[in-house]
Parts: sequence; C-alpha cells; structure tokens
Amino acid sequence: MLNIGIIGYGYWGVNLVRNFNSQDSCNVSKVADNRQDRLALLQKNYPEIRAVNQGEAIINDPNIDAVVIATPVYTHHGLAKAALLNGKHVMIEKPMAASTAEAEELLNLAEQKNLVLMVDHTFLYTGAVQKIRELIDGNAIGKPRYFDSTRINLGLFQPDINVLWDLAPHDISILSFLIAERPYSINATGISHTRNGIENIGYLTVNYEHDFIAHFNCSWTSPVKIRQTLIGGDSKMIVYNDLEASEKVRVYDTSYSHITEQDKFNIRVDYRMGDVLIPKISNREALAGVAEDFINSILENRIPISNAKLGLEVVKILEASQESIKHQGKEVLIK
Amino acid sequence: MLNIGIIGYGYWGVNLVRNFNSQDSCNVSKVADNRQDRLALLQKNYPEIRAVNQGEAIINDPNIDAVVIATPVYTHHGLAKAALLNGKHVMIEKPMAASTAEAEELLNLAEQKNLVLMVDHTFLYTGAVQKIRELIDGNAIGKPRYFDSTRINLGLFQPDINVLWDLAPHDISILSFLIAERPYSINATGISHTRNGIENIGYLTVNYEHDFIAHFNCSWTSPVKIRQTLIGGDSKMIVYNDLEASEKVRVYDTSYSHITEQDKFNIRVDYRMGDVLIPKISNREALAGVAEDFINSILENRIPISNAKLGLEVVKILEASQESIKHQGKEVLIK
Amino acid sequence: MLNIGIIGYGYWGVNLVRNFNSQDSCNVSKVADNRQDRLALLQKNYPEIRAVNQGEAIINDPNIDAVVIATPVYTHHGLAKAALLNGKHVMIEKPMAASTAEAEELLNLAEQKNLVLMVDHTFLYTGAVQKIRELIDGNAIGKPRYFDSTRINLGLFQPDINVLWDLAPHDISILSFLIAERPYSINATGISHTRNGIENIGYLTVNYEHDFIAHFNCSWTSPVKIRQTLIGGDSKMIVYNDLEASEKVRVYDTSYSHITEQDKFNIRVDYRMGDVLIPKISNREALAGVAEDFINSILENRIPISNAKLGLEVVKILEASQESIKHQGKEVLIK
Amino acid sequence: MLNIGIIGYGYWGVNLVRNFNSQDSCNVSKVADNRQDRLALLQKNYPEIRAVNQGEAIINDPNIDAVVIATPVYTHHGLAKAALLNGKHVMIEKPMAASTAEAEELLNLAEQKNLVLMVDHTFLYTGAVQKIRELIDGNAIGKPRYFDSTRINLGLFQPDINVLWDLAPHDISILSFLIAERPYSINATGISHTRNGIENIGYLTVNYEHDFIAHFNCSWTSPVKIRQTLIGGDSKMIVYNDLEASEKVRVYDTSYSHITEQDKFNIRVDYRMGDVLIPKISNREALAGVAEDFINSILENRIPISNAKLGLEVVKILEASQESIKHQGKEVLIK
Repeated sequence: MLNIGIIGYGYWGVNLVRNFNSQDSCNVSKVADNRQDRLALLQKNYPEIRAVNQGEAIINDPNIDAVVIATPVYTHHGLAKAALLNGKHVMIEKPMAASTAEAEELLNLAEQKNLVLMVDHTFLYTGAVQKIRELIDGNAIGKPRYFDSTRINLGLFQPDINVLWDLAPHDISILSFLIAERPYSINATGISHTRNGIENIGYLTVNYEHDFIAHFNCSWTSPVKIRQTLIGGDSKMIVYNDLEASEKVRVYDTSYSHITEQDKFNIRVDYRMGDVLIPKISNREALAGVAEDFINSILENRIPISNAKLGLEVVKILEASQESIKHQGKEVLIK
Repeated sequence: MLNIGIIGYGYWGVNLVRNFNSQDSCNVSKVADNRQDRLALLQKNYPEIRAVNQGEAIINDPNIDAVVIATPVYTHHGLAKAALLNGKHVMIEKPMAASTAEAEELLNLAEQKNLVLMVDHTFLYTGAVQKIRELIDGNAIGKPRYFDSTRINLGLFQPDINVLWDLAPHDISILSFLIAERPYSINATGISHTRNGIENIGYLTVNYEHDFIAHFNCSWTSPVKIRQTLIGGDSKMIVYNDLEASEKVRVYDTSYSHITEQDKFNIRVDYRMGDVLIPKISNREALAGVAEDFINSILENRIPISNAKLGLEVVKILEASQESIKHQGKEVLIK
Repeated sequence: MLNIGIIGYGYWGVNLVRNFNSQDSCNVSKVADNRQDRLALLQKNYPEIRAVNQGEAIINDPNIDAVVIATPVYTHHGLAKAALLNGKHVMIEKPMAASTAEAEELLNLAEQKNLVLMVDHTFLYTGAVQKIRELIDGNAIGKPRYFDSTRINLGLFQPDINVLWDLAPHDISILSFLIAERPYSINATGISHTRNGIENIGYLTVNYEHDFIAHFNCSWTSPVKIRQTLIGGDSKMIVYNDLEASEKVRVYDTSYSHITEQDKFNIRVDYRMGDVLIPKISNREALAGVAEDFINSILENRIPISNAKLGLEVVKILEASQESIKHQGKEVLIK
Repeated sequence: MLNIGIIGYGYWGVNLVRNFNSQDSCNVSKVADNRQDRLALLQKNYPEIRAVNQGEAIINDPNIDAVVIATPVYTHHGLAKAALLNGKHVMIEKPMAASTAEAEELLNLAEQKNLVLMVDHTFLYTGAVQKIRELIDGNAIGKPRYFDSTRINLGLFQPDINVLWDLAPHDISILSFLIAERPYSINATGISHTRNGIENIGYLTVNYEHDFIAHFNCSWTSPVKIRQTLIGGDSKMIVYNDLEASEKVRVYDTSYSHITEQDKFNIRVDYRMGDVLIPKISNREALAGVAEDFINSILENRIPISNAKLGLEVVKILEASQESIKHQGKEVLIK
C-alpha cells in the first residue's frame, strides 16, 4: 500500500484526492494547502486524511512514498526537486514547469534516482484520446499528415501566463502522445488586448521534417466554445470534438492521394469520401486512469504514459512559442 | 445602355453572363472563350449574344464599354491592361492579378484613364457580409479586436496556386472590407503533401498596429467542411457561419474588458455574456449585387465597393504569405 | 425508343422533362400545359419538344407510349383513367389520387390492361432511403419496431388539402417501402388555424398488429425546418435526417431487449450503446431514378418500385387520417 | 425557522436535502428512508440531520412544520394525506399521485386545512421555462397557437408506469404553467415492446376549445436524446431545446396570418421570417427555486407556482392518456 501526499487542495486538488482515494493500492495520507478554508473543507470531507499547511510536511515525511503537486506553475520545480531529492515518486500538474531548464533538471534527477516522474496531462487518459491513439497505432488512418486544434472560449484571463501556456498544454500533450516523430521547430503569433502584454489569443504552428504539420488556435476571447481537433492521415481522417456528449470521435473514410506524373507541375490528386464511423468510447473518468497509471508505474517500476519526457516536450514547445511571439513569429528550433 | 463583353465562359462565366444579362442598364453583347464546346453552350442558352473565341475581339470592339475578365489568374494582367488601354471599364475575377506589381500597374492605369476597375470579390455582396459591415459601421460590436477565419474542406488541389491563393481571397477581401485600419505585416506557415511543393494547408496571421489581429486557416484536406469566421469587438462579438442555411450571422452580446490597476501585473478582467441575436439577412444572389455595383459605378462615375485598391491589398497579403511560408514563417511587411 | 408525354409544366414538370429527356431509351415528344407562359418557357428550353395546351392532345396521340401526369390532385384520376383506357403506361405525381376509390379504380384498370402504373414517390429513389431499405433487408437493424417521422417548417398553406395530404405522403411512402407488414388502422389529430378548417398541424399514428408503430408529425407552422425520421429495430436504430448535406443516415448500434421473467411485472431490460456508422450514400438525383424505373418497368414489363399498390396504400392512410381527425382522433381501420 | 422533514433519500432526495439545507429560513431536521445504506450516506454527509427509517416518524413529529415526499408514486397519497391531517405543509414529487381521485382528495384536504400543498415540477423553476413564461405573459409571441414537445432517449424502462407517466409530467406541467386556457380532452396512442404491456413509446394530443393544440412525443427507445419543445404564437414562435448548454430558448420573429376572403376556399396566408433572439437565461439551479417557493408559500401563506391544482391537472391528463391508449386512441374528456 503506497502512501500518497497531495500538495494543493484547490479546484483540481479536490478531484485528485477523490481519485487517488478510490484506488485500491494507495492511501492518501496527507494533504497540504496554505489556505485554512481549504483545509477545513478537506477535513469535513475526509476526516481520516491528515491536513497540513506546508508542502514540506509532506516532502519530509518518511512514511510518504509519492507526492502529487497541484500548485501554481512557478512552484512546481522547487517542490518536485525537493521531493525527488527525498526519494519520493512525483506527479506534477501540467505544465510540468515554468521553463525547459527546470523541466530538464527534474527529468534528469528522476532518472538518476530511478523514481517515477509523471505529469498530469489528464486528456491522455480520456476514452477519446485513448481511442484515437489505438486507431493510429493500428494504422487505421494511415500515415498521419496533420493535426489541427482549436480550443477557444470566453475564458478566464490568467494574470501570469498567456493563453498558449494556459490552454495549449492539453492539445500539445495529445499531439506528443499520438505522433511518434519529434518536432524540429515552431512559429507562433498572437495578441494581447490587456495592458500587461499577456497574449489572450495565440496561434502556434509546429513543424516536422517529414510531411507533417500541427497547428493550434487558442483564445480566451471567443463568444463560442470550441474544442475541436482534426487529425488527417493519408488513408482516413479523424475529427475529435470534445464538446460532443457521446460522439466525440468521428473517423472519416476520406483521403486524397497524388499520382506522380513525369512533369512535377502536372499533379493529379485522387479524392475519396466513404463512410463515417463514430466509435463507442469509454466514459471512465480520465483522472482515475491518471491515478492508476501513476500508482502502477511505481509498483511495476515502469514509465507512465504521461511521463516526464512528454511533459518536457510540452514545456519546450510552450517556451519556444513565447520566444517566437516576441520575435514577430520567427521560427524557433526545438532542441 | 452599356455594352458588356465577358471573357471566359467557364463555371463562373455562366453565372456572370446570367447576372449581367438580367441587369436593366446593360447588355451583354459579346462573350469570348477559346473552347468550342463552351461557345456552343453559350449559343444554345443565349442565341442573341455574339460568341467569339478571342478576348481581343472584345477588347478591340469600339462598341463595348466594359469588359469582365473570368480567365485564369496569370492572364488577368495582360487582358485587363489591354482593355484599360482601349478605354474600357474592367471587372476582374479574384484574385486581381498574380503579383503586387501587376495589380499596382492596373490600378494606376485605371486611375490615369479615369476608368472603373473592379475585382469580383463576390462575398462582399452577400447579405451576411453586408449585415456584418452594417453592424460594425453602426458601432454595434464596438472597436474590432480580432478576425479569425477557418475555410477548410476536401477541396480540389489547384495545380498552379497554393491553398491560400485559392481560398483565402474570400476571407481577406471580407477582412479588408470590414476593417478600416490597414495591416502592416503578415506571417504564414503551411505544408505541401504533394511533390510539386504547392501548399495544401496554410495558416496566415495578419498583424496590425492597433490592438487588432487576423488569422486564416485554409485547407484542401479536411474531412469536414467549415466556413466560419469569428469577429470580436470590444462590446459584442460576431460568429459568421456561411454553411448555415438561414442563420449565417450571430451577434453575441459578449465581451471582456480589463480594469486597469496601478500594478500592471494585477489585471482584473470583467466578462459579460448576454443575449444572442441572429439578424435576418437578405437572400439576394450576391453576384447580382456585383453586376449592379459595376454598372452603377460606371454610370455614376464612382468607385465600386470591391474596388481595385481592395483587390490590390488582397494580392499584397497573398504575395507576402508566399514569401513568409518560403522563409519559415518570418514576418513580411505589407508596404 | 419510348415516346413520353408530360401533362403539367409547373415547378415539378420542369424537373420531370429534364430527367426524362436525359434518359437514353425514351424521348419526351409532347408536353401539355394550359398556361401560355409555361409553354413559352418550354419552347425556349426545349425547341424540339411539341408544346400543347390540352392533356387530351397527349392522351389521344397514338405515337405516345407513356404519360406522366403532374397536375393538381383532383385531376389525377380523370387524366390517368383516360390515358390507361387509351393503352398508355402512366406515372402520376404523388399523391396518386384524391380518394381510395379513385386510386383503386386506376390500379384495377392498369392490371386489366397490363399497363405500368406508377406514382412519383420520389423519396423512394434517394440514396438515403435506398440505403435504409438495403440495411433493413440485410437484417442490419433486426426486426423493425417503430418509425417516427417529423416533417415541419414554415410551409405554404395549401388551399385545398391539409398538411397531412401535403407533407405526409413522402414519409408514408417511405414507411410502406421499408416495412413489409401492412397497417391495420390509424389515429389522427390536428388543428386548423385558418377559417377554412384545413388543418395546418397534423399528427398521425399508424397501427400494426405485430409490435410495430409509426407516427408522423407534420406542420406548416414551425419556425424551424425539421425532416427527421427515427427507425428503431430490435438490434440497431437508424436516424435519417434529410437536411444533413452529407450525413443523412446514421446507424446506431443501440438496442434494448427485455429478459422475460416468470412474473410479468418483473421485467428486466438490457440496454446497449455501441458505435455509430454513417454510411456513404449515393448523391444521384432521385428523379433520375424515378424516370429510369418507369422506363425500365415498361420495357421489361415489370412492376416499378413506386407502384400503384404502394400509391394506393398512401391514399388509404391519408383518407383514413382525414376521417379520424373529423371524428376526434378515433381509430379508423385500413381495409 | 421552519422545520422540514424529507421522506425518501434516493437519487432525488439527495438533491432535495442539499437544496432545502441551503435555504436560510428553514432547517432540515429529519430525513426518513427504509434503506440502511441510504441513511448511512445521509449521516456521513449531514451528521446534524436526524435519520429515521419510517416516514411516520416525520409525519407524527410535532416539531416538524413541513414534509417533503420523495418516494414511489403509489405511496404519495397515503403519506401526503397523513401529513396534511397532522397539519403539515406538504411538497410531493411529481407526479402528484397515482390517480385523479387521490390527487383531488389531497387538494381538497389541503384547502380545508389551509395548508400549502405543492408538487415538485422542477422544470417550472428553470431559467428557460421562467423566461418563456415571461415572454408569453409579456405578449412577446402573441396568442399561443400550439405546443409541440419531444422528449425521447434510450431511457430506463420503468416496471410500473408507462413512458407517458414517466416522461410527460415534465412537459405537461410546463404546458399547464404557460397556457391559461384549460384543455377539454386528449387522445393518446402508444406501443409496448415488452411482455408486461407497459408502453415504451407514447404519443399524446391535448385538445383545447380555442385554436390551440398540444402534442407530446415520449420514448424510452430512441438512439438519440431529444428534449425539444416548439411553442408557436400568432406573432412569434419559440424553440426550447433543453439540451443546449447556453442557448436553450430561441425566439423566432416568425409568423403566418391568414387574410380572410369572401370565399372561404380562397384563403391567403401571409408569412414573415425575421430575426432570431436567444435571450440570456438564468443558470440558477431549479431545485433551489422549488425549495424557496415552498418555504415562502408557507411563510407568506400563498399558493406556490407549482401548486396542487397544476399537479392535479397533470395527473388528469396522464390518467386520461392511459384510458385513451387502452381504447385505441379515442378521445377522453378532461373533467
């Protein structure tokens, strides 16, 4: 039985406690938050869990095996590093850290100490994304050609991070999870409508060497909510609409292929539009899968699906996007 | 009664002849096409119109007052220049010309000779775009803040022009028509999935000096057809969905505004979501409005709505987008 | 080569002439209409077709093999009877006749004279309905259990027939085409909001002996247009939405089944929800299929899909519905 | 401070306790349920509430002012009668009782004893229905002409009541709330696909004397979920789609009107289609409004919105519908 400590009992922390608490092979023994009202709420709902007001009380507790960090981004690195140094397995809320340097340090540390380091990219554990991965792995759509994501709504303006840092981690993590090839560069543009210069609209293109492109459209200032991703393969294409209640994934038996001619300006393209399939997908709460993967990765000493390497790639792309926006959309390489 | 000559009797030429033919103050006297079967079709439908197989027969006809050019883009400049030099008023299919230099030469020539030079950006004459212009001009949405357009479907790959040159002129012309400020630069990215290197997916950001941004997502390789534009103002926002049968324009009484604080990192944003209004819009065929505007501009010696200056701006943005894509998305200034 | 005469060159007559004219094995030789402007239009479009102003000129023409009747309902019986008596094959616009008695007389006459008698229930020839029939015949949905149709919009109030006579023939003909069992009775309710007492809203239930029911909701007074039919089988269910551009038919792998228990009040029902399939369906113009079926039925001396017996059943149900509405929704048997 | 006792701590009982508990002027003092696990759950969540296993312990408690009954329908009458006889105010879950006779007895008893008797028709307290009532009362749609409701999905087959008793109370209560005129008769049809003869599909028409009609389409066996109601007035029409997240109510500036002519067969109908308005509606939890209305009706000695008379009318219509279905859809009067 693993003992889990959770740092941060905000909106998401509540869900984390509930989900880890219902896992069979772990026990949430301590939860930390520096707000008294949050601790009171915890005590009311879970009298058996020990409430503490400092993360250190968890990180330094020798009885705790693993730490879950659900605090603001700028604190991720410090807390995770301390926990890893104390020999704890760690799961961090997305995004993994505030910079590539921070994320890399954590990744290296976990590898050195042979500890599980996971990032809570919850979407990877949804029935929809799992089904899409299964389709791609089973060659159901052929070779992937593009990934085009829109995630916009009238959203809360974050005071410290821009809209790409806020919304794009979901979709970038899905991209990294689905596509085997690693990106080599990005371009980003955007605008800030507030005085603090923090972008509330952001556009991001991720470039690959081999015939693949990804694009992200994020906004806190749309009158309508859209969460849609198109994933085109060279034999079929997927539309993933996360707002659909029961029909989130649609597989179009649609493709185009060019017939090479002698003359390169004489391209002939064949089109095909066939059936559409809406596969049934699991309704299981994604966060239950997150908790299970973290616990089992520790118990089985394996790398979780939403691992630190994937989390690092997300941070690399976000960091690069910020640099690109600052330099008028210029290409920034992903090292 | 104006005498009109139309060069090109392809798919769109058929619509042009029908619409000009039903105008009261003009007369389609000659139509040119170098394909015999097209001329035969013309003769069958319009025995009274003279069919010729060379545009020159129209351009050099002293009885013809105005020429409509509906031929491939690379021929626009030559035909239009000859017509203008012969003192004809000219309307050209979109895009106006294959380069900024060509478009500028035509614009200057028309101004020198005091002739009407119009580009057939048909969308400007739709009930939907007219209604949106009316809303913006009447300050119904406040100061415009962004324009975000998606025009994707499984479309015909063009052999000579990329997807931005093919699809974006519609939306760029709408942007130019709606927004008073002129853009100062663009960034574009894209990918070609064919051997000829012609992009079938393109992303374009258009940058402005004052708190406004525009973005275009164009693809020939989407399994679903989307033609949607979001136009955000600082008091209301518009969603324009061209695929809706009767509810193309929706006005959201939605806005956000930031309350400036002393400390620039202490931004407070206010949100508001109110009613949605779907105004009734005219169903009149847009091309009838195009024909009428061209004729009346000639008769009243005025500048048409879809004028050469607007057409030139569209070409400038397209030309810049091609340069940006070639240079890895770098910013290209719009002179 | 069959010689066809068409009586009635109204809105639908134009489509009939165009479609029969493009069939290889027939020739539209005469078209009748008593309106001079319609005949002028015909002459302009089809100078080779003889225009006459009386249907008799077609019915009595010994060179004409088959007659298509596209005139108001109350004239169907007289024209069709005369044509059949003159040995012509006949196709009548839907509904077949103004009463069961009229329709039966025509059916008997055609059988006696061994002539093809067809009713133009165009929907039976659409790709969507053909696909649904194929699915049901292939046992793809199991035993059909219900048919539930909604056909409402802000429609033209007909001066002589109520909304069920106007709109329901489409859906009743589809029902008759899809379901092998014959109905034994109906109930109908409705309301008239005009002084002439002609119902503009009508509800119709069609009853069957064996575990099947059909229902129709028709209205000329809906602010939104809906054309949707649910067809439930005991293993899968179909949603047919005729307003969808490319996804008209959806097959839900959804079912319920009751597990019989000793005690009849102790019913256990099992539910299943699986994938959804949107099959590709043909886009061929339905009326081309109608023309082809009529011609081939004549040439091959066979019964067409949309035959007189099906047409008669539609009239029987409509006539019964009128009686039921007049008698406060009471059950009326279908003999 | 009113003392409330709640009988029944099932799915809905949980919501009732939560909502009454958060009212300022009342106190949930006792909750009864005969299932031990439900009482244990209650104790965990609300240690301060007294858990009892018999409703009698609430009904006979002199400290309790008002009783909320959330038990199966067949128990409503017995519990409510006992509570009223003991001088308690009573709120009953919908439907009010299993028969008209039972409902009438309760209504009379409450009137005699001057006690508040309310039925929990929760939908009347939703922002959507409140807005529609406001629109109708403010003459925004003119004189109501029809009400057409569809409430279908793959729903749980109830073992004791048919689909109309299960699903239609929502929509019938909305109808009763919105429309001032009282119905005079109904017709109903339906089918049972199970051996127990309980209908899983039901159609109900409600007839009125003056130019108004209502229709209900209910099914437990639809592959898709639809909860849509059309409400047509003679100047505007409303579409109420309860599945829309934020745009539940749409007001169409659409109407038709007939122009009377001398000759009654010469009807001319004028059509009008204008703007569509989607008013913002309150997101407040409807059950909070229910609790508030019950409490305030007691405190202010007034009749609640969802009163016993309205509850009785719903039962009358349901009872009549059952009789009509049994007699092949014949008209049944509503006394």
